[in-house]
This record gives sequence, C-alpha cells and structure tokens, in this order.
Amino acid sequence: MTAEAQAVEVIPLGGLGEFGMNMLLVACGETAVLIDAGVMFPGPDLFGVDLVIPDLAALEAYRGRIAALVLTHAHEDHIGAVPHVLEHVNGPIYGTRFTLALVEPKLAEHGLEAAGRLVVVAPKERVTVGPFELEFLRVTHSIPDCVAVAIHTPAGTIIHSGDFKIDLTPPDGEAFDLHRLAELGQAGVLALLADSTNADRPGVTGSERMVVQAFEEVFSSATGKIIVTAFSTSVYRLQILVDLAAQFDRRIAFVGRGMQQTSQIAGRLGYLRVPAGLEIRDADVPDYAAEDVLCLCTGSQGEPLAALPRIAINDHRSVTVNEGDTVVFSARIIPGNEKAVARTMNHLARRGADVIAEDQKRVHVSGHASEEELKLLLSIVKPRYFVPIHGEYRQLARHARLAAQVSPDTSILMAEDGDVLRFDVDGGRLAGRVPAGRVLIDGTRTGEIADEVLRDRRHLAADGLVVPVVAINGRTGALEQPPELVTRGLAVDARHEAVLRDAPDVLARAIEAASPEERTDPGLLKERIRVEIQRMFRKRAGRRPLVLPIVMEV
Amino acid sequence: MTAEAQAVEVIPLGGLGEFGMNMLLVACGETAVLIDAGVMFPGPDLFGVDLVIPDLAALEAYRGRIAALVLTHAHEDHIGAVPHVLEHVNGPIYGTRFTLALVEPKLAEHGLEAAGRLVVVAPKERVTVGPFELEFLRVTHSIPDCVAVAIHTPAGTIIHSGDFKIDLTPPDGEAFDLHRLAELGQAGVLALLADSTNADRPGVTGSERMVVQAFEEVFSSATGKIIVTAFSTSVYRLQILVDLAAQFDRRIAFVGRGMQQTSQIAGRLGYLRVPAGLEIRDADVPDYAAEDVLCLCTGSQGEPLAALPRIAINDHRSVTVNEGDTVVFSARIIPGNEKAVARTMNHLARRGADVIAEDQKRVHVSGHASEEELKLLLSIVKPRYFVPIHGEYRQLARHARLAAQVSPDTSILMAEDGDVLRFDVDGGRLAGRVPAGRVLIDGTRTGEIADEVLRDRRHLAADGLVVPVVAINGRTGALEQPPELVTRGLAVDARHEAVLRDAPDVLARAIEAASPEERTDPGLLKERIRVEIQRMFRKRAGRRPLVLPIVMEV
Repeated sequence: MTAEAQAVEVIPLGGLGEFGMNMLLVACGETAVLIDAGVMFPGPDLFGVDLVIPDLAALEAYRGRIAALVLTHAHEDHIGAVPHVLEHVNGPIYGTRFTLALVEPKLAEHGLEAAGRLVVVAPKERVTVGPFELEFLRVTHSIPDCVAVAIHTPAGTIIHSGDFKIDLTPPDGEAFDLHRLAELGQAGVLALLADSTNADRPGVTGSERMVVQAFEEVFSSATGKIIVTAFSTSVYRLQILVDLAAQFDRRIAFVGRGMQQTSQIAGRLGYLRVPAGLEIRDADVPDYAAEDVLCLCTGSQGEPLAALPRIAINDHRSVTVNEGDTVVFSARIIPGNEKAVARTMNHLARRGADVIAEDQKRVHVSGHASEEELKLLLSIVKPRYFVPIHGEYRQLARHARLAAQVSPDTSILMAEDGDVLRFDVDGGRLAGRVPAGRVLIDGTRTGEIADEVLRDRRHLAADGLVVPVVAINGRTGALEQPPELVTRGLAVDARHEAVLRDAPDVLARAIEAASPEERTDPGLLKERIRVEIQRMFRKRAGRRPLVLPIVMEV
Repeated sequence: MTAEAQAVEVIPLGGLGEFGMNMLLVACGETAVLIDAGVMFPGPDLFGVDLVIPDLAALEAYRGRIAALVLTHAHEDHIGAVPHVLEHVNGPIYGTRFTLALVEPKLAEHGLEAAGRLVVVAPKERVTVGPFELEFLRVTHSIPDCVAVAIHTPAGTIIHSGDFKIDLTPPDGEAFDLHRLAELGQAGVLALLADSTNADRPGVTGSERMVVQAFEEVFSSATGKIIVTAFSTSVYRLQILVDLAAQFDRRIAFVGRGMQQTSQIAGRLGYLRVPAGLEIRDADVPDYAAEDVLCLCTGSQGEPLAALPRIAINDHRSVTVNEGDTVVFSARIIPGNEKAVARTMNHLARRGADVIAEDQKRVHVSGHASEEELKLLLSIVKPRYFVPIHGEYRQLARHARLAAQVSPDTSILMAEDGDVLRFDVDGGRLAGRVPAGRVLIDGTRTGEIADEVLRDRRHLAADGLVVPVVAINGRTGALEQPPELVTRGLAVDARHEAVLRDAPDVLARAIEAASPEERTDPGLLKERIRVEIQRMFRKRAGRRPLVLPIVMEV
C-alpha cells in the first residue's frame, strides 16, 4: 500500500465551535464516510430562521465517493439534517435499531424514499466500507441505543465517541463497553475524538436513575394532576415516570405530537414498556380524577405551539391545569429559550400549579460526561492524538486541558469546523481548510436565508424603517409632488417627529439641487435620497433606521 | 383619628411579576412615600430598547403628595429609574451613604440638580414623613449598606425587606439586624413584603465569603495574568479580590468605566480598602509581568462595549489576554445574555486563556435569600399579612407556599404590579387597580417606544418586508404604470420568487377590478393591495411578511 493510500483525512463540518449540527467526514483514498448529520436550533438572534444545518459545500469535492452515513444516536443534533445530506451519500445509512426508527418518519416527512438504504447495526457489529472497517461500541447517554464508532483505517484506529456519559447503572442495563475500549486502548489507538459538551463541569454527571428520588417525592406528595415535560426522545426518563405512575396508581397520557410519536415507536420496539391498561388518550384525561393522572408533555422549551405552553394558557383541547396540580420541567433549558420557559412557568403558577424545575429538585440529569468521566475515557483509550469535538471553543479548550493532564504522551489537535486533520506516515496534523459554515433554513427544505437578508432583518428590528417616496417626471427630473415619508418601527420621540416634519422639504431641496442626470437616473437618485435621510436621522435624532427609497418616474 | 385616616394603601408599580424595575407606593391620607425606583434591562425580544422603567401614570393621582423617595440599596433595579421619577417626588430622597453616593453621579448624568434633596440615613435611624415613621434596618445582600424599611403607619407596622440574604458572616462585619426584626415581630407586624428572587432555591444561599476558597485556588495556580469580571457594584467581591491580590503580591487594575467609577466612590467612602501602592492604572498593565497583575473588569454580561468583551477580541487600548492567562466570570448571567457571554468566553479560550465560571468553581454566590432564609425571616417577623415581592409570578407563588408552611396565622396577599392593597380596620385585602406596566426607553430620557412600534419591529424581524408601489391617476383611478414590489429581509426561495414575479400582474388585475371609488381613495386602495399581497405570500409561499403599500396619486 502506498503512503498516500494509507493517509486518512478527518474533517469536522459541524459541532466544533458550536453546540449542535454535528457532522464529520472521514476520507481515505477514494472512499469517504460521513458520521452524523445534525441540526442546530436557531437562537433568538436568527430572526425567522427555523433550523440551522452545516454548510454542505465541502461535500461537493467528494461527490460519488461518500460511501456511507453513520449515525451514533437519535438526537436531532445528530440526525436532524439527514434529509438534507441524503443526496450526497452514495450508500447505506448505518445506525442502531432505535436510531433508524426515528430517522424513518423524518425521511417520510420530507417525501424521501430511503427505507432500502437504512441498515440496522448492533453494538459489537462490524461493517466494511472501502478501506474502513467500522466497529460499533455501546455507550451510555440520555437516549437508548447509542454507539461510539471505532474506525479501523489503514493509518490506524480512530475512535469517535458520539455523545456519551459513563452511566454505570443504565436504566436498560445495557452497559457502556469499557472492556472493548480498554482492549483497543491496549492495542493502540491512533486518535480519539470525544464529546466535550460538559467538559467544564467538575466531577461526574450521574446516572439517568439519579432523578428517581426527586420524582418519588413528587409522586408521594402530589394531590392533583402530575404533568411532566421532557424531550420526547428522553425514553429513559419516560420509563422512570411510567414505572412511578404504575407504582402510585396513576394513568398515563402522552400529550403532544412528538411525545405521542416517540412513545409509540419506542413502545413498538420494546424500548419503552407501558403496563397494559395504564395508558389513556389525552382526550380522556378530563374523565379521570386529577390525582389519578400523569401527563407527559412536549413543550419543555416553552415552544408556543407545543403541548405544555398551550396548557399553560388554557388553550389545549383536552388537558387543563388547575389549583393543586404539579408541573415538573424535566429538561435543561437550551440557551436562548430562558424567557419562553419562564413565561410558561409563570402562566402555570398563576393557574395555581406547583411548578418544579431543576433548581429546586434533581428532576433532570445531563446526558453528557463531566470532567472525571472524560478523563476516564482518555485513560482507557490512551490515544496517540486527541481531538475534542462537540462544543463551543471554550468546552473544546477545556477538554484539551483535561487531556494534557491525563497523559503527556497524547498529542492534542485543536480543530474547528472546516479544518482538515490529516493522519499519515508522518503522524497527525492540521493540513488545510475546506469551506464550512452554517445554512439557515426557513421552514422548508428549499428556503435558505442569505446573510444579507438576516442583516436587513436585524437592522429593521433594531432601528425601524423609513420609506421616502418621491415621484419624478421621467424626462425633466422635476418633482411631481412633495416627497412623502412612510415609517414603521420608529420610536415615538420629539426628535424623530421633528426630522419627519422637516424631511420632505429638505429632500425636495436636495433633489432640486441635484444635476438633471442624477435626477433622471433612479439608481443615483435613490442613493442620494438614502444618504440625505440617513444623515438627517443620524445627526438630529441619533438614530440609524433602514432607509428604503422609492422613486417613481411618472 | 377617623377610620379613613388610618387606612393605608400599598401599591406595587414594578417588580411583582417581573425581575427588575422595583417600585412600590405606600399612601395614607394626604401623604405617599415611594420605595425604590429601579430599571429593568431589556431582553433580546425588545428590539432597540435600551432600558425599561415602570409606567409612572399611576403617580399622577398623587401629584404633590409623594413626600419622599426611599431607596433600599444601590443596585440598578432599585435606583436606575430615580432620574425618571424625580419630578414626581415632592421631598427628600432617603438612602444610606453608599446608596446615595451611587445615585449622585446618575442624577448628574441626566443634568438633574438634586444634591440638596439627598438625605443620608443610617440603619436604626428613624425619620417622620406625614403619618409615617420610617425606620431603617440593616440587611445583608451582595452590595454594602443595604436596608429594609419598617414603615410605622396608623394601620400598623409594614416591613419592606428590600433585597436580602441572611449572611451571618458579612465581609464588612455589619450584621443583619435580626434583633430588631424579632422585637418588631414580638410587638406585632401588620404586613411583611419580602424579596422572592430565589424563592425557588432550596436550602440557604451562603455568605459572600463563600467564594474565597475558589479564588484562593485560582490565585494559587494561575501562572499568567488574572482577569476577573463582576458587577462593579459587587464591592464585597472586589474587596475579597483586592485582599487576595495583596496576599499573592499582584497589582490591581480596575478596567472599564463602571469599575473605575464604583471603585473610586467605594474607596473614597471607605467601603473598599485598597492597600497603598497596589493599584495601577489600566494603561500601566502592559508594564508589569503577567503573573504580577489582577485586572477587575466590566463586561460580565458580554456587553459589546464593556472592557472584557473588548479585551476578548483584542480591541482594548491597554489590556490584552494571552496564552496562560486566567479569566474568571464572577457574576450570574442575566437571562437573555447567555449567547453574548458564551461568545466572549469562546474568544478568550481561543486566545489561550483558562476561562473559569460558576459551573466549574464557586466563583459566584447569589445575593438573594433561598428557601430556608425566607422561612427564617417569616418566622421572626410573624406578620399578620404577607405579600411576596420581587420576582416573576412563579417565584411569588413559591414564596407564598413557603409562608403557608411557616404559619397558618399569616394571611397571604398575592399582588402584581398595579394592584392596590388596602389595610384598614377591616384588615388587609386587594382593593382595586391602578394603571401599571412598563415604559421602554430608547437611548434618551424622552424616547419612549410604543407597543405597536415594537410589534412592527418584531414582525419585520421575523418575516421581512414587502413594499408594493402603485401609481394611480388621481382622477380616473387608472394605473399609471405597472405596480412594483420592493422587498427587504425576505428569504431567497423559489416560492418567494414566483410570488414576486406574478404579483405585479395580480395586483394590476385586482386594482382594475376595484370600483372607481375604491381606486381613487388611497386608504381603501392601500388596504386592498395589502390584503391581496398578504394573501399571495401566505397561500403560495407560506409566509407573512409585513406589507407596506405605497400609493401615489399622479
């Protein structure tokens, strides 16, 4: 095998420098493999954007050569962009049974036919893709059926951790495969790529079971309805709550589309076991006494159309919340959603509910490894190179510091989206860049939002809009009537009013002062009007509204 | 004294239903007293708003009768609106020495002359205002010189806690006046109004001294510069850091306007003691070895113009951050600022700094009482009525639950901004409403922003703008030229493009189909154009841009 045939390139395209939209390309010779294809949810600064996915431009260079898509687990930040990358992949989609079961309806929603390409793999299984042998290793996280991937390449073994924590008492009894990782570590691992999400948290994260005690207290003391909101994919959490409902003799209603869909899929495949007769439809909730019901709802992020936020404002078709009910928020708040969640909590409190969240009781536990777990993985795998993945730069840098503490024999490669990591006979190093970034999706698969659109929206949002309207004689350039100003989103303010009062005259004089060429060239005239109006607002009102001149030639 | 002369009304005008803009009116007969006048910082959903203050409309009814403004402590959410309410107050402004020292420059900034009206009071002091005797009681919080106010009224004693936690080892040795509160409780308190900010946190908050251990670790291990960002008013925090700098032989630079101003005021008045020769100017930081310097910076919320965020992007005139430096965020993140703070942290990590925040070490402690402290205050004061204040509804409701646990003899009055609480011979109760709300301030004291302006800004931000331009013959109503469409902030999208391509024709046909009356009435015509264009975008592109028709009569 030539030196070049042994060279492997690892290219993160999402998730290194931000939380979410995880995607990574591994290439060797004529073959490439994509690991995960996730979305990111837009913050409030991305006006009108529904979804963010990685820029796929870099995949063009690999057209026809991406021989497989490998999914580590079924969270949206790892599978949400599958419909968008599918056309770039020329081969099967590998994932565990639960992961692919959640990918399937997502493809159907986008009208994509890919059932024949979904290939279920089990932990400990291996598949060969060109020069790669992919080995799947069980890891523990907050969703069932998660794997890490050991990629055996001509250059050596590269381990991608997926998302994980080291849960030594996983609710489903499926243990983190420490043994195989130790074996691989002993045999020699070229590179470890590991989840940095909680690299800034000391200690250990704790088992999924950790929430049981807090919920036992809730079930013991609640006298009315119990409503719990969580991510619908948090199947372990749902199982714990179903078991408590059985124990405390409450019926269970799954409320909200995501909760119903995921609980059905998880139930059908045996990942969620609901004792017969315990589940009721949400429409039947009003028929039961409050103290006999547990509702599991969507809406933990305060999303206005999800179940709990609608229940909170008494706008749900069947579930209400009343004095004496208990509502538990069993999920972390994704940054940017704090205000929406607080609003939902306040509405619920106003209706008399006892609102319980993570700050009061341990009703939530993270799915990502903290400092001591990250050090444990590094100690077991003993990689020659370490690449922190999944996190903003701060978490990646913190993870790198931990790796340096664990062993001086591990070389750290700090990479961000678009960096090309090359591993060959000379070792591992950063060796170039490919295009990387984010693509903003507005509602549908086709609606991409350009940066300039977003800039305009920000500008409009911050300072409002002024539309000067001018009618010009197309031949002479003479004003046909006095200019008008239409405004939107402008603060009511004495200085603004003065500017608006004087602007038509100032504008008329400026137009009359312009040369006939300028006056009969709509482009030049618009620019002159724009500059004139901007100057007036800036100097006299200290404001910079967006100015959008309309020039009509009549 | 008549029954009416004994009646006291308590009217919260801010801070009950939101965090911030705390303000409360207490009235009896012809006299009223205002307690605190705070601001709230706008969230990212308040586009272009700089500051939020309580609606002052309710004060009109008390014109000439507000005989004093009482300030409990110097945080912005208690004193930030003083310049705005000053004209409504017909008497002195009472506050402790440190509080008024921070109010003074604020009034000067607004060009207000009020030095003669600022009256310094000390804990245990009493002043008489009409039928009220105001007694100031030392409480502990995260800023020096905080007081609660016992208002002795003809109806009984009303205690307003201000902001507090029960710090049994306050850094300045000034103890929470538990003794006097116990005495008052024994004698009989009509009503307690108490801070609910942390009512949803179990246990106790902990002393200001609690951060010492974490900072000792930072000072012991740091090899480069230490940079700490905190609120400049957190004088206890600054003192702890100054003491550690002295102990570990580092020079101290206060960096950023707020930090310099507050440290100077606190130093001059003896609230902050910096050993001689230890302080250096920020301009001199480059002259010292990194390991010999501690910088105390503004910018803990990621504010783009503050010191630390500028240092983070290497845009500060004298302070830089380099490989091996340590940066500590010693403040809570105000909801809404998470992304800005994360951005600052990532920049700092990218420059090689070790970034430490609350999630890793106890480098911050809250200033507000948790559950056990709130229960302690309730137990000591034993009020006949309890009114939770300072919090969103969820915290107020939680505080009410705690009060119910402490004693069945206390009646709870749940109020929100604008509710009138009346205490008279028949007891205490909600007895009406006054106007209340928020006023949005855009940059200057005069620039108020109306709700409809904000609604337009939100709409523009979310969906963009379409301006259909139509020129009509003013007499016949005939189209003078084909309609045009100008857009801003619209997503680039095949469906949008199709709508924009077809719109002029559709619009022309719609206008031609309209009656002559409609075509020559610009108001009616605009409405028809707006409806037509909105319908097209909604049905064919699934979008709802703001439509702003321009009709020119020529």
